[in-house]
Amino acid sequence: MSDHKIIRTEDLEQMETRYRASFVNSLGGFKSVVLIGTKNKEGRENLAIFNSLIHIGANPALCAFIVRPDVSPRHTLENIIETGFYTINHLNTDIYKSAHQTSARYDRETSEFEATGLETEYLEGFFSPFVAESKVKFGCEFVQRINIELNGTSLIIGKIVQISVPEDCILEDGFVDIEKAGSLTVSGLDSYHSTSRLARLTYAKPNKFPEEI
Amino acid sequence: MSDHKIIRTEDLEQMETRYRASFVNSLGGFKSVVLIGTKNKEGRENLAIFNSLIHIGANPALCAFIVRPDVSPRHTLENIIETGFYTINHLNTDIYKSAHQTSARYDRETSEFEATGLETEYLEGFFSPFVAESKVKFGCEFVQRINIELNGTSLIIGKIVQISVPEDCILEDGFVDIEKAGSLTVSGLDSYHSTSRLARLTYAKPNKFPEEI
Repeated sequence: MSDHKIIRTEDLEQMETRYRASFVNSLGGFKSVVLIGTKNKEGRENLAIFNSLIHIGANPALCAFIVRPDVSPRHTLENIIETGFYTINHLNTDIYKSAHQTSARYDRETSEFEATGLETEYLEGFFSPFVAESKVKFGCEFVQRINIELNGTSLIIGKIVQISVPEDCILEDGFVDIEKAGSLTVSGLDSYHSTSRLARLTYAKPNKFPEEI
Repeated sequence: MSDHKIIRTEDLEQMETRYRASFVNSLGGFKSVVLIGTKNKEGRENLAIFNSLIHIGANPALCAFIVRPDVSPRHTLENIIETGFYTINHLNTDIYKSAHQTSARYDRETSEFEATGLETEYLEGFFSPFVAESKVKFGCEFVQRINIELNGTSLIIGKIVQISVPEDCILEDGFVDIEKAGSLTVSGLDSYHSTSRLARLTYAKPNKFPEEI
């Protein structure tokens, strides 16, 4: 098709570094974007934005995300390994600019909560700080680190152990209406989006086209 | 907060299986949703929907997704390992219902392209079938399979080697405007959403709050 551009490996290799990062990051589609809250043993709090959260399994409830240990800031990873706990907090319209700002390279002494004005919230029985302004959030126990030797990144797997969601967003079948809760999505490295539901679709079976729920 | 429900590990364990799957899948936020196209050595085509695509790196351009080898259909994984190639195709409003339908448990003899009415498209020099109706799509070379022993899933890592995107969606800085291309996002297992951009934000630096680009 004439209005489509075809890009191959050699074209990717010739792109300027930041151009390529922006281009390749866009291809993955709309991504989950969350703030990960941690605290080290001395009580120093840390908050960082991540856009690589994936679902690994429901029983046990597992999720994972990618970190680049070779790139600053790596305080999130250090705190997770040191203490075994972290929180995952959805973004919403009120906080996405502050959330984006946590990606600035603050030094180790600076709490991104203080630097960006986001408030900490501690839920009973959980070590790490949540983001008070976040509506959908959960605490994780560190389970496993898998190193991806191809490019020095790591997959960090955690078990979801404590969840806080708006009661009126939990539907009868267990589905959580995160659009109603105002959760956002990201594309590329810096583009934030709200969503509009097209439909929920029925469980797919051969010879029966899906219907809207 | 009184309008928030707190759910702990023991509550998760007591949930009915489908309720828990729907609930836990919702927590991960809005996710990338794509169709993965493959073909085996005999030429049999396969198409399946996945919602766990993540960006691994830009140089080399790597992405990954999760498969459950213990659960049918596993034809996608078999074809990837047998041939070394697969395509990743974004959804849009015109095709999301057909895309969802590919998750029905068709037998090995059935092509999900034929069963759902989606059309195959072959791009010069690439082995696996693309989805003709998809606007943003790319071909991958299989690189590595990492087994996650915790729950029997696998992370499949691929190198992006050939990309097709609408020319007018590529911006000056390399960002691809996938919202303009009509790409969708998913929440939970079955809820499809279009998006509305709030803003792109400038690269974050300490002591300077991000601005809209």
